[in-house]
Amino acid sequence: MPQALAGIFTPNLIPLDRHGEIAEGELRRYIDWLIDHGVHGLYPNGSTGEFTRFTVEERRRIIQIVCDQAAGRVPILAGAAEANVKETLIACELYHQYGATAVAIVSPIYYRLSPDSVYAYFKEIALNSPIDVTLYNIPMFASPIDVPTIRRLAEFPRVVGIKDSSGDISFMLRMMSAVQPIRPDFVFLTGWEAALVPMLLMGCQGGTNATSGVVPEITRKLYDLVQSRKIDEARTLQLRLLELFDAMLYSADFPEGFRAAVELRGFNFGIGRQPMSESQQVDRNALQKVLQCILHDFGFVDPPGGGCATRTGNMNADRISQITAQVIDQLRQKGVR
Amino acid sequence: MPQALAGIFTPNLIPLDRHGEIAEGELRRYIDWLIDHGVHGLYPNGSTGEFTRFTVEERRRIIQIVCDQAAGRVPILAGAAEANVKETLIACELYHQYGATAVAIVSPIYYRLSPDSVYAYFKEIALNSPIDVTLYNIPMFASPIDVPTIRRLAEFPRVVGIKDSSGDISFMLRMMSAVQPIRPDFVFLTGWEAALVPMLLMGCQGGTNATSGVVPEITRKLYDLVQSRKIDEARTLQLRLLELFDAMLYSADFPEGFRAAVELRGFNFGIGRQPMSESQQVDRNALQKVLQCILHDFGFVDPPGGGCATRTGNMNADRISQITAQVIDQLRQKGVR
Amino acid sequence: MPQALAGIFTPNLIPLDRHGEIAEGELRRYIDWLIDHGVHGLYPNGSTGEFTRFTVEERRRIIQIVCDQAAGRVPILAGAAEANVKETLIACELYHQYGATAVAIVSPIYYRLSPDSVYAYFKEIALNSPIDVTLYNIPMFASPIDVPTIRRLAEFPRVVGIKDSSGDISFMLRMMSAVQPIRPDFVFLTGWEAALVPMLLMGCQGGTNATSGVVPEITRKLYDLVQSRKIDEARTLQLRLLELFDAMLYSADFPEGFRAAVELRGFNFGIGRQPMSESQQVDRNALQKVLQCILHDFGFVDPPGGGCATRTGNMNADRISQITAQVIDQLRQKGVR
Amino acid sequence: MPQALAGIFTPNLIPLDRHGEIAEGELRRYIDWLIDHGVHGLYPNGSTGEFTRFTVEERRRIIQIVCDQAAGRVPILAGAAEANVKETLIACELYHQYGATAVAIVSPIYYRLSPDSVYAYFKEIALNSPIDVTLYNIPMFASPIDVPTIRRLAEFPRVVGIKDSSGDISFMLRMMSAVQPIRPDFVFLTGWEAALVPMLLMGCQGGTNATSGVVPEITRKLYDLVQSRKIDEARTLQLRLLELFDAMLYSADFPEGFRAAVELRGFNFGIGRQPMSESQQVDRNALQKVLQCILHDFGFVDPPGGGCATRTGNMNADRISQITAQVIDQLRQKGVR
Repeated sequence: MPQALAGIFTPNLIPLDRHGEIAEGELRRYIDWLIDHGVHGLYPNGSTGEFTRFTVEERRRIIQIVCDQAAGRVPILAGAAEANVKETLIACELYHQYGATAVAIVSPIYYRLSPDSVYAYFKEIALNSPIDVTLYNIPMFASPIDVPTIRRLAEFPRVVGIKDSSGDISFMLRMMSAVQPIRPDFVFLTGWEAALVPMLLMGCQGGTNATSGVVPEITRKLYDLVQSRKIDEARTLQLRLLELFDAMLYSADFPEGFRAAVELRGFNFGIGRQPMSESQQVDRNALQKVLQCILHDFGFVDPPGGGCATRTGNMNADRISQITAQVIDQLRQKGVR
Repeated sequence: MPQALAGIFTPNLIPLDRHGEIAEGELRRYIDWLIDHGVHGLYPNGSTGEFTRFTVEERRRIIQIVCDQAAGRVPILAGAAEANVKETLIACELYHQYGATAVAIVSPIYYRLSPDSVYAYFKEIALNSPIDVTLYNIPMFASPIDVPTIRRLAEFPRVVGIKDSSGDISFMLRMMSAVQPIRPDFVFLTGWEAALVPMLLMGCQGGTNATSGVVPEITRKLYDLVQSRKIDEARTLQLRLLELFDAMLYSADFPEGFRAAVELRGFNFGIGRQPMSESQQVDRNALQKVLQCILHDFGFVDPPGGGCATRTGNMNADRISQITAQVIDQLRQKGVR
Repeated sequence: MPQALAGIFTPNLIPLDRHGEIAEGELRRYIDWLIDHGVHGLYPNGSTGEFTRFTVEERRRIIQIVCDQAAGRVPILAGAAEANVKETLIACELYHQYGATAVAIVSPIYYRLSPDSVYAYFKEIALNSPIDVTLYNIPMFASPIDVPTIRRLAEFPRVVGIKDSSGDISFMLRMMSAVQPIRPDFVFLTGWEAALVPMLLMGCQGGTNATSGVVPEITRKLYDLVQSRKIDEARTLQLRLLELFDAMLYSADFPEGFRAAVELRGFNFGIGRQPMSESQQVDRNALQKVLQCILHDFGFVDPPGGGCATRTGNMNADRISQITAQVIDQLRQKGVR
Repeated sequence: MPQALAGIFTPNLIPLDRHGEIAEGELRRYIDWLIDHGVHGLYPNGSTGEFTRFTVEERRRIIQIVCDQAAGRVPILAGAAEANVKETLIACELYHQYGATAVAIVSPIYYRLSPDSVYAYFKEIALNSPIDVTLYNIPMFASPIDVPTIRRLAEFPRVVGIKDSSGDISFMLRMMSAVQPIRPDFVFLTGWEAALVPMLLMGCQGGTNATSGVVPEITRKLYDLVQSRKIDEARTLQLRLLELFDAMLYSADFPEGFRAAVELRGFNFGIGRQPMSESQQVDRNALQKVLQCILHDFGFVDPPGGGCATRTGNMNADRISQITAQVIDQLRQKGVR
């Protein structure tokens, strides 16, 4: 049922408690909030969801919680990549039982495989999975899936779509050009919201976009604006979303900037699994103040105490000027200035 | 007059004679043909025009011929990069006298310079050029010009726009986001027609697109379709243009595939300056047959003798099947089969 | 006891049975063979050992088997990277109990982390591991560990060395230059035998070299020749080893070429975990014939039936000419020619 | 006479006057100084010599001056790459007349050519040059020359060697392995002194090393130590040279750091052709102080006023601490502290 795979899917961040364990209650509350705020689907165990930093058992538990909490309100695209074909197929079976709509499978990680090996890997999965499979191409982290390979894999009915996080719109068009003649129903999702509007305009059915975990209202609105062909409004909002996206993406090691942002929406995401140096923790606090200003511009949160300094788009400068503004404010409150 | 820099500019290929010298007559005929077929402007001495393979004197002569032949019918964006700031400024002076509308200057080549050096280089030019300057960003060949540097350079009135050949639509949006608040008149041109439609939809004023030197009717039509917001038609044509673009771009060392294609439109482009191995010459012939089939689909040329085999998008395979089809046809004509 | 980490360590390939499960008997026989043929140590759960393709439980079992079978005859450097710091520390504890000499830990995989994050990750491990830790730098597959980070990590006594698989000798010298003033005992191992002789000459204490799993006699001899400063002999042997290394490395997706080679030494390595396409299986057979010829030149195995064609260093050509030679031989035997 | 191409060749920096024009007198004085300080040859019009920033006429004049001033005392390897084959051959003719020993030709710049095109380019030159040709491989700036292409080009008697600036010792060994069986006289020079000692130990006949333009005594001594197989001494000196090399290479856009250093040896190199921003000029001054300290450690120059702060290998930190040390010293001299 590939139609289910359209619209904005949130690549779920996973809240942890102060021991670094999955915070189930907060995760369930977060899922409800996302659905209430308009996302079309959920995508747990993706890169944003730090799937490689959880154990096999934890990855299973995450899918179980998400499926259970969503309870059919929205489709679930479950990240199912494991150590090898056999383990991945076990995950496919389980996630099918849990009620996932489809699985998304990244090409093998760590080694950089040739197209033939990528093909052979997905072919095994395509032939044996009990659940629809979405290819997941993220060449910055895993073996790339090239156009001829996607074309060959599209011959398997089980392979129903691709989620591409390359951000390369020419590549997206090449994929469409190669696949649509033989599989008009094939789903193309983009994982790169810096290009969400043009990707949707050129024919993507939707996206798996980490910003939708922070500002689901905006990412959803972008989608709706494109659907109604309000291109100028969509473009304006795209540029504003881009500022937020870049701030979260480039100012901390992924996905810590997104974790810092979602906390501003009223969730407790706890201590991340990837340790931070002291200077990184200081940077995170400064980043969070700038993010608070951006989210305030959208009307979602109050500004930080001391107000918001003018932003320049240069995050290092912005962090410093924002912190300076707040220090001055605190001094003022204490009567020092 | 930056408004002049809108629409489709053709990055001029340069016809050579059988000695490898500039074929002035053919060049003048080609310019007329391009203007007659609807391109909005000409862009000589760009990468497509192989500017690095000509001497200083030849580069000057090319601009002189193009300006003379265009005779004010269309604006001329003249590539003016030379060995250093001083030499580049001499070219700016000359091209201004020749009647060019603006110059396009690639950031320093060979060495990979830091953003600060790229800034310092263009600043000198911006302060001293008698003619409007367009930055030319082509990170695959020359030092990249990053967003903060473009933002800083946009403060100089002489810098009126950027031609970007990265093909990265997120980068284009980031540039617009950084520059438009301080320079609403700044011109953004894309040099990557694989993404021409989405780039135009997101706010580019036009493009410098090598396909317009081969199928000016199509590149121009794409532009017009976007202007009239016929997005579905534009998308369909974009995919067809992409097939041609990829065939020309990836099947021979750039820009030989474009030279092979333009010959099919009735021009004699002679012997290229970059020598070819024997196998490359064989490949070029095979490529030209496939290109003939693609151009035939557009209705511009007759099919090759023996007709056109079905194309797969895999150029190696397509070349072989096309050649096979023709060999069989020749055998048939000779009564062998 | 860092002195233990000197010499040639074999990054253990893992034999599988026809179901793809660990072939314990064959693994034990292989370990004995390696030790008997002169390797100084064993390095299971490295990239050559396909650690990412096994489950947590399998990785543990591999270390248990290797430690048990080696039984103190040679030191064991155990790959201990798991999904996160906590899981990695559990592996450190276990491998310490199993009797490993030290662990080797690759920097976090999948995400590309900043130097600060790499530092924070290893710092946690350095502070809590009960067993000596060797950093493992393999920038082609995992987040790079840069020189300043190594310098900072060398301040922790638990961090006793680095295994570098970048193959960059200037980088190796930079590390030595940065670390040796504060930690003269720090161990530098190279994982890139294409440069084994120069790396050893410039001060590496040894290497973790996949060729030693195929031709332990040769890799060991290279080491001994450098120790006795027989530079010309070492250089000649290095060039011969390079031919074998390149054939195994570049002719199949890593580490399948090494698996194909070790089978020629009399081991049954079974079906690999990464599926192969049909054409890859044909290629593997052809590769194995060429490898047999190279190993025959070293005197380790008989030539393939039909003898060995002249090699050119171009593996594609060599595979074809080798297969052709054997087909002709078979035809001859059948009286066809 | 390829034997002439052995030892340390200095890639000539070109002194300019305050107008940015070639300072002929200073260039002649510099050439004498280099020869007097032991370099085996000169290599003008290389990357260090900023050949792309000069005009055709200036490049010719540089070779003329260098050949004239050297007057047969040392061999001259003249960089002869021009815009295309025809222009390059004109340079070959001229430099032959000027008395150059051989030419070095970089593969075509700007465009990234396929191996076949690189081959075709050099083949034309090999067949028509009146002077011996050295290939120049510098993949960071120009189209790479791969091993099979070098192997094919080594069949032309006119091609007598290769200067490789990749710094990749495995690549160097692969070249030797491919070429020496058919051309035992082929010369291998390394342009990467960070690996000079291991490259020489593995069979390079010499190097074209920019450090020899700053500390010719040291680069030459490294060569001599390797010739006499004093490996431990050579290694120690290599690490010291590496510190200087890295400081010059990574602390300013190439080759400005080398220009800043050579001034400390008593030459006036004037204003460079690539403009510098204000912050770059400040950085250059700070860098020069650190370089003065490094050169002082070698005994070549006096320390800067205020003495030398301890260096850490982190140039940013070193620049700041060095400047701080000197400011404190100046304050002390003025009685402020």
